[in-house]
Amino acid sequence: MKGRCKICGREAFIKLHYPRMYLCREHFIEYFERKVQRTIDRYHLLKRDDWVLVAVSGGKDSAVTAWVLNRLGYNVECLHIDLGIGDYSKRSREYAERQCRELGLKLHVLDVRKLVGHGIGEVRTRRPVCSYCGLTKRYLMNKFAYDNGFDVIATGHNLDDEASFIFSSLMNWNVQYLAKQGPKLEGKGKMVGKVKPLYELTEREIALYAVASGIDYLVDECPHSRGAVTLRYKAVLNGMEEERPGTKLNFVKGYLRNRELFERKLEEMELRECRVCGMPSSGEVCSFCRFWGLEKPLDLRVRTRVEEGERGEKEIG
Amino acid sequence: MKGRCKICGREAFIKLHYPRMYLCREHFIEYFERKVQRTIDRYHLLKRDDWVLVAVSGGKDSAVTAWVLNRLGYNVECLHIDLGIGDYSKRSREYAERQCRELGLKLHVLDVRKLVGHGIGEVRTRRPVCSYCGLTKRYLMNKFAYDNGFDVIATGHNLDDEASFIFSSLMNWNVQYLAKQGPKLEGKGKMVGKVKPLYELTEREIALYAVASGIDYLVDECPHSRGAVTLRYKAVLNGMEEERPGTKLNFVKGYLRNRELFERKLEEMELRECRVCGMPSSGEVCSFCRFWGLEKPLDLRVRTRVEEGERGEKEIG
Repeated sequence: MKGRCKICGREAFIKLHYPRMYLCREHFIEYFERKVQRTIDRYHLLKRDDWVLVAVSGGKDSAVTAWVLNRLGYNVECLHIDLGIGDYSKRSREYAERQCRELGLKLHVLDVRKLVGHGIGEVRTRRPVCSYCGLTKRYLMNKFAYDNGFDVIATGHNLDDEASFIFSSLMNWNVQYLAKQGPKLEGKGKMVGKVKPLYELTEREIALYAVASGIDYLVDECPHSRGAVTLRYKAVLNGMEEERPGTKLNFVKGYLRNRELFERKLEEMELRECRVCGMPSSGEVCSFCRFWGLEKPLDLRVRTRVEEGERGEKEIG
Repeated sequence: MKGRCKICGREAFIKLHYPRMYLCREHFIEYFERKVQRTIDRYHLLKRDDWVLVAVSGGKDSAVTAWVLNRLGYNVECLHIDLGIGDYSKRSREYAERQCRELGLKLHVLDVRKLVGHGIGEVRTRRPVCSYCGLTKRYLMNKFAYDNGFDVIATGHNLDDEASFIFSSLMNWNVQYLAKQGPKLEGKGKMVGKVKPLYELTEREIALYAVASGIDYLVDECPHSRGAVTLRYKAVLNGMEEERPGTKLNFVKGYLRNRELFERKLEEMELRECRVCGMPSSGEVCSFCRFWGLEKPLDLRVRTRVEEGERGEKEIG
């Protein structure tokens, strides 16, 4: 790296492609955090006094989300869901615990195996693993946030995730997926709102921020990962990005400007309350309780909204 | 090529990727022509007694369109527009003339320079060359077809053209372009309908059909070609097609199934008649007459609907 920081002239730590510039470590961190704050402001993701639950997996995206929101002064607690996928989950959990310890953030852990009796990948079902894993994570995240009065859930989705999801939905014309994508999903009733503070940051920038900030994270992919398909679309987008920097960001922003085209396809589903757990459901029993055969609701309440200085870790399940 | 024809077992002439099969020269020709007929039937492109004007440029796509429609028994005459782009137009015209002579098809030629006083690329204007060239071609094609009572205009657009156009419109969110794309544009008033019989055939298949049928065509790109951008998108699609054969066709078919999403964006423009030429126009004077500063209408009428056996060539302008 031969360049010099655009701000201070010191030796560069990173060369950004879009906008094109060199930055030193310190000014890259400043740039990155300002960009997250701008994303939060532009899309009205968070209010100053919101109580934010960050879902941390052990990977870089969620760790950086928690770290930056904390640095920007938001009230953050973290939730790790232990999926019970053998060694992979064990290592994920260790990373999440270490990250929160280093950040001084309160970490809650939900253990899927203890909660529903089986880890992900341990049940016989025709439903694909990634499908019921996603269902389980979404349910637990929301129920935990709701039970404990969090105002909003923040996830680590980044620009590459969003661009490739929109891209793949278009290539396959899965237009029903295109009605509600975006940096913010408003809460409603027992559905807690969800936000994506890293919406406009690339995977590369996030990885570099983690390195610059000394955040240690798990690189391994989940053994059930259906990575192949997603990675293919990411590779195509990266090729186009290389030829024309800014392609991904402009593509995603263009989608947001035109999202209304797809909204009309969305049939407003009438949601009622699950007979078992009382959470929102399209049927009599919600898909979580149905899939796991639950007969009484999970109680995920913990004492939270920690006082300043009081830190710790608590496991439920 | 080691394969054997799927139908007759003779040495293969081509390996198709989607559907995957080897065919000999004869059965490839049969396959190709049946596929064009199926496209015509599926999208109701032509009626048996339609008088069809094929716009021939000298290139492979339009030559194959004229050839196949003729082989399938449709009433075809051809129109070549001499754009007046130096040597390129000269060679294009020679190829178009040779193609029609060999096919025994009646060819009409419109000479832009004689009609409006300048060739394409010879006027000083801030409007990009490709933009006013397209405008000129579309106008002349339609006016010629209308003046001479053709029922429909057939163009050589192929699957690669259509897929890359839709792809680029989506990547750049030019959604207004996505309202009316498709194999058929219905005629209305003085706008003659347009159809694309090669809508579901790839560039590769068309080039191979031309070779198999001994059709000679101009390979050169127009010197004004804005090929770079289009070619980039075509390359991306070809990459995806290679990884998953059928990608282009499924992408285009998916678009057609979902086109209504974009139709609502289309404001029905109130068309009136151009004060100069009487053709449809959004303003008082149509963009063709305005751009070329015409003060009286072009008269493009010729005696046409030739009797069987009467062949020839006539130039207007």
